[in-house]
Amino acid sequence: MHLFYTPDIQPTNPQYFLSEEESKHAIRVLRLNIGDEVQLIDGRGGLYGAEIKVAHPKRTILQINSVISEFNKRNHYLHIAIAPTKNMERLEWFLEKATEIGIDEISLIICQRSERKEVKTDRSNKIITAAIKQSLKAYHPVLNEPEPLAKILAREWDGQKFIAHCEPGEKINLKDGITPGGKYLILIGPEGDFTPKEIEDALSNDYKAITLGESRLRTETAALEACFEINFLNR
Amino acid sequence: MHLFYTPDIQPTNPQYFLSEEESKHAIRVLRLNIGDEVQLIDGRGGLYGAEIKVAHPKRTILQINSVISEFNKRNHYLHIAIAPTKNMERLEWFLEKATEIGIDEISLIICQRSERKEVKTDRSNKIITAAIKQSLKAYHPVLNEPEPLAKILAREWDGQKFIAHCEPGEKINLKDGITPGGKYLILIGPEGDFTPKEIEDALSNDYKAITLGESRLRTETAALEACFEINFLNR
Repeated sequence: MHLFYTPDIQPTNPQYFLSEEESKHAIRVLRLNIGDEVQLIDGRGGLYGAEIKVAHPKRTILQINSVISEFNKRNHYLHIAIAPTKNMERLEWFLEKATEIGIDEISLIICQRSERKEVKTDRSNKIITAAIKQSLKAYHPVLNEPEPLAKILAREWDGQKFIAHCEPGEKINLKDGITPGGKYLILIGPEGDFTPKEIEDALSNDYKAITLGESRLRTETAALEACFEINFLNR
Repeated sequence: MHLFYTPDIQPTNPQYFLSEEESKHAIRVLRLNIGDEVQLIDGRGGLYGAEIKVAHPKRTILQINSVISEFNKRNHYLHIAIAPTKNMERLEWFLEKATEIGIDEISLIICQRSERKEVKTDRSNKIITAAIKQSLKAYHPVLNEPEPLAKILAREWDGQKFIAHCEPGEKINLKDGITPGGKYLILIGPEGDFTPKEIEDALSNDYKAITLGESRLRTETAALEACFEINFLNR
């Protein structure tokens, strides 16, 4: 069944008007017709069952037949703060895969060794939206605008905080460090890793240093590994 | 330090001649010179320390100073048999990431619902080679030529066998099903999943059905999830 992302829908709406773009897609491309059933997700946990009442290529009207709230609500909250990769494709792969596997919030941190300091988050958000539709997720992960690492470090966070880095020093495994069902903020550095000073600043801000295993991982692979581990440990 | 993949080197070699292509890369691109140290991996567990004796753009000669065998030898054997994705980039992404995280053998299986039945494994192998160099792995994962699912099912396998599918039926989690330090063969189906008949054939060949979590995953994401779980559970 076809799925539409409709962030502006409300659980009380008896019907919903597809945007001009979505209407055109539904009628001209998908060739949907009156009576065809579709699903809507609002990105805030709402999954709607609907059927086409008016099949108009500019203004398709859907009748809402069912509403499920908190659909597949996650039992924990994962926030990964990653330094954007030099090659945008790698960051975009991470966004797609992390969305499929399960993530709640992504921050883009600019570090001293970051080669990329800017990201077109509108394009990145489109990738996340496509991934929630593909993997049938009712919650849309939040993608924050790029910001300096220092701003993240200074932020209040009522959960556990971790930093993954490759410098020497005492490190723990996530499986030994996390409280299941908790809130986690994990920092992943740029291609050149965090600087010793950045690591020191994180540790002095109550971040715990973690290892993601013995392999030398690329930035986006390390971030996905952390995402895998948190989801796996909370299964 | 720069790393070269030299599958033809032997642990007893006192020196090694870089190929014309690698010599050109080393001298013209990397601008390496006499006395510069490099590392070599043979793809069979050998990690060599070497230094440049003759910096020739076509025939660079290296002196081998140290040999480590079974470098970071894995404590288990993971063989993933995946149906090639319609979009080759997705399969290539899996090959790169699985190599970084840890895998020993990859088979490409042609299933009834496979949209792609051919893969240029030479190009795929180049991606694996680049990934072992990037992640400093001394073992080169084996990539097998595409073959029908039936051939894999009929193959002798002195380890555990699993099939990941989305059809209803009894399934276990890998963490409840694997023997640590073992040999694992895991089947991952095409975009349209395995057919009920294919699943039945696998089960009757002693494959155990597994779940990779609640998320609806793309083929390459499911394969990477399995790769991650096996490595994580054997850490």
